[in-house]
Amino acid sequence: MPSLSVFVDVPLAQKLEGSLLKTYKQDNYPNKMFLAYKVCMTSEGQPWVSSVVSKIRLQIAQDPSLDYEYTPVMGMESFIQASLKLLFGKHSQVIVENRAGGVHTVGDSGAFQLGAQFLKTWHRDSQIVYIISSQKEPHGLIFQDMGFTVSEYIFWDAEQLCLDPSVLLNVVEQAPHGCVFVIGNISNCKLTQSQWTKLTALMKSKQIFPFFDISYQGLSTSDLEEDTRFLDYFVSQDLEFFCSQSLSKNFGIYDEGVGILVVVALNNQLLLRVLSQLMNFARALWLNPPTTGARIITSILCNPALQEEWKQSLEGIIENIMLIKEKVKEKLRLLGTPGSWDHITEQKGSHSYLGLNSKQVEYLVKKKHVYIPKNGRINFTCINPCNIDYITQSINEAVCFTKP
Amino acid sequence: MPSLSVFVDVPLAQKLEGSLLKTYKQDNYPNKMFLAYKVCMTSEGQPWVSSVVSKIRLQIAQDPSLDYEYTPVMGMESFIQASLKLLFGKHSQVIVENRAGGVHTVGDSGAFQLGAQFLKTWHRDSQIVYIISSQKEPHGLIFQDMGFTVSEYIFWDAEQLCLDPSVLLNVVEQAPHGCVFVIGNISNCKLTQSQWTKLTALMKSKQIFPFFDISYQGLSTSDLEEDTRFLDYFVSQDLEFFCSQSLSKNFGIYDEGVGILVVVALNNQLLLRVLSQLMNFARALWLNPPTTGARIITSILCNPALQEEWKQSLEGIIENIMLIKEKVKEKLRLLGTPGSWDHITEQKGSHSYLGLNSKQVEYLVKKKHVYIPKNGRINFTCINPCNIDYITQSINEAVCFTKP
Repeated sequence: MPSLSVFVDVPLAQKLEGSLLKTYKQDNYPNKMFLAYKVCMTSEGQPWVSSVVSKIRLQIAQDPSLDYEYTPVMGMESFIQASLKLLFGKHSQVIVENRAGGVHTVGDSGAFQLGAQFLKTWHRDSQIVYIISSQKEPHGLIFQDMGFTVSEYIFWDAEQLCLDPSVLLNVVEQAPHGCVFVIGNISNCKLTQSQWTKLTALMKSKQIFPFFDISYQGLSTSDLEEDTRFLDYFVSQDLEFFCSQSLSKNFGIYDEGVGILVVVALNNQLLLRVLSQLMNFARALWLNPPTTGARIITSILCNPALQEEWKQSLEGIIENIMLIKEKVKEKLRLLGTPGSWDHITEQKGSHSYLGLNSKQVEYLVKKKHVYIPKNGRINFTCINPCNIDYITQSINEAVCFTKP
Repeated sequence: MPSLSVFVDVPLAQKLEGSLLKTYKQDNYPNKMFLAYKVCMTSEGQPWVSSVVSKIRLQIAQDPSLDYEYTPVMGMESFIQASLKLLFGKHSQVIVENRAGGVHTVGDSGAFQLGAQFLKTWHRDSQIVYIISSQKEPHGLIFQDMGFTVSEYIFWDAEQLCLDPSVLLNVVEQAPHGCVFVIGNISNCKLTQSQWTKLTALMKSKQIFPFFDISYQGLSTSDLEEDTRFLDYFVSQDLEFFCSQSLSKNFGIYDEGVGILVVVALNNQLLLRVLSQLMNFARALWLNPPTTGARIITSILCNPALQEEWKQSLEGIIENIMLIKEKVKEKLRLLGTPGSWDHITEQKGSHSYLGLNSKQVEYLVKKKHVYIPKNGRINFTCINPCNIDYITQSINEAVCFTKP
C-alpha cells in the first residue's frame, strides 16, 4: 500500500506578488520593457552599485585580522551606531539623549517582521495598520499575516497630478485612535511648516504610532540630511516610533539584507526595555544577522573620505535621474502629447508617478509591452538612451488613443 | 505635562540563554576557561575557518562579473542544489526522484523558524515537539514561542556512560501519535541495523514527523557520507521529513547565516506544494536570504579540487579532536583519576559528554573556574596544549573531592 503523505492537505500557495514581473518575463515580444524594478538601474540596465562598495568589498576580503564569528543577536553594534548617526545626524536630540537604538535585521522585511511581532505583543490596544498602497506588498502583508487589519492609503492626487499633503492629513484625521501608521518617502510630499505641526499634533493626540520606512536616504535629493529631516518634527513632538532603515538601495548592496529596526523611545530606560524584547524575537527569527553588507557599510560610514566618495556616487545617480526625467518631459513635449508633464520633474527620486490613468497604463502594458504598475508609478532609472524613444512614443500613443 | 510612553508596559525581557557564557565573562579569575563554545576552535583559541574559505572569499571579491542583485525568495538555487547533493549524495533516491528540495534560510534558526511556521499551519493534528535537551535553546524555544508543547529528551546514559539507542527507542515509543521529533547528531548513537528498522517503523506507524538538525556534516567522522548516511533509513521507509541543514560550522562561516530548510516529500508534486507555502513564509520573514556565505560554499562544492581541499581541512580538524581526546584520557589516567575514561574517545565529534555528575560539574565551575554546561557535554576543541594540564587536573580534583 502506498504511504499517505503528511502533506496531503497542503495546497500550492498563491503567488503574493511579482505578477507584473512574471508576466513581463513570460512575454516573448522582443522590445518588451519593465519599468518597475525596485532598485536604481544603470544606463546599461544593471542594478546600480556605489563604486566605493566594490573597493571596500575587496579590502575586507584581504583583511587577515577579521574573524567571521557569530555576531551578537542585536547584530553589529558599530553598524547600528553608524547607521543611526546617518539617519538622525550626530547631534540629534535622540542620539545625545541616548534614546534611539536599533536591532540589525535581515533587510527591511526583517525589520518589519520584527517590528510587527513586537507590536502584536505589546501594542494590544489597536491592531490596525495604515500603509501606503505602493508598500502593501510586501510590508503590509507582513502585518496582515500576523492578524493586523491593514488599510491602504495613497496621497497621489490623480486629478491635480501631485502628492497632496492635505490627503495625508485627512487620512490621519480619519484613522482610528492608537493605530500604527507606516510612513514611507514622505519628504516627497511637500508639507508646509504648519502642516507638519498639524500632522504630528494629530498623531500625538490620537496616539497613532508611526512606523517609518526609510530605504532611500540620499536617493531622494542626494542630500542625506535633507532626505530624513522630517524625522525631526516627530522627535521634537516627543513622539515615539519605529523606523525600518534599509541601506540596500543607497549603497547598492542588494543581496545581503542590510537593515535596522530603529527604535526611538522617550528615554533610555524605555529604549533598553524595548530592545531587550526585540532581541528575543530576533533570536527566534535568525539568531545572528548576516554581516558582509553591514561590514562594508560601516567601513564607509566611519571613514570621512570614503563617506565623501559614497556621497558623490549618490549625487551622480540623482543627477542622472533628473536628466532622464527632463528628457522624457522634453520628448513628450516634442511629440505634442496632450497635457502638462511638469509633474514628472516636480517629483523627487527614482520612483515617480507618470500621471496616467488605468486605461492608459493598460494600453502601455497590453499594446506596447511596456510594463508599469497599475498606479503608473515607475522607476525612471529603467529609462535609458536605448529605450527612451520607444517609451515616450508609447506614452504618447497611450494618451492619444485612450481618451476617456 | 510629560508625554506618556507607548512602551510604558513593556518590561525588560529575561535573557533566554547564554547565562554560562555571561557568568564566564563576568568572572575576573585569570585562569578561567570556557569549554562550551558551539563552534570548533583552533589550538590558538580562535573559531576554526576552513583554509579554502578565505581563498574563495578573496576570489569572489575580485570577480567583476558578479552582480549583487536581490536573490529570489527561495534563495540561491545553485547553493540549494549543491547542498542537497552534499546531504543525500548525488545518486540518492530522493534526488533522482526529484522529491527533495529546500529553501535557503538565514542559518539554522531561520530554518527552524520557517519549519515551525509551516508545521503550525499545516500539521494541526499534533502540536507537540520532542527535542534533545542540548538543543532546547535556541531551537526548542522557537517551537515553544509559537505555541507548541515542547518535551525534552536525552539519550546519554549517565550510568553506563554511553549514548544508548534503547533510550531513544523508548522515547519514540512513548511519544504521542503525530508529534514532531527533532533529531540531532544521531549518528553518534550507534544503532544496529535492527534498531534503525525499529525506529523508522515506529515513526512511520505513529505518524511521527522527523525534523533533522544537521549542522555537523563532516565534523563527526570527517567522512561526509558517513555522517548523514542514517537519512537513508528514513528515505527507504518512505518517511517524509524536514531537515535544517546548516553549513556554518563545517566551513567556518559563522556570521553569514548559511542554512537550508530541506524538505523530503513522497513525490515532486507534494514537494512543490510545500515549497510554495514555505516561500510565502520566507517572504515575510526576510524576503531575500543573504548570499555571501552561500556563494562561497557553492563555489567550493561545485569544484572537485576545492571540495577535496575542504575535505582535507575537515580531516585535519577531526584528527585534532581525536588527539585532544586521547591526551585528556591519558592525562586523567596518569593522574590516577578514578573511573574509566574510555567514553571520551568512544564519542565522535567535537562535542562530547565528559561523564561527570552535577556535583562534579558544579565543582569545576565554582572552584576551578572551568565553565562547562550542567550536562557535562563539552567542546573538546576548546582544550589545547596551553590549558590541558589545568583542565585535566581540575577534572581529577572534581572527581576526587566530590564523592557521592
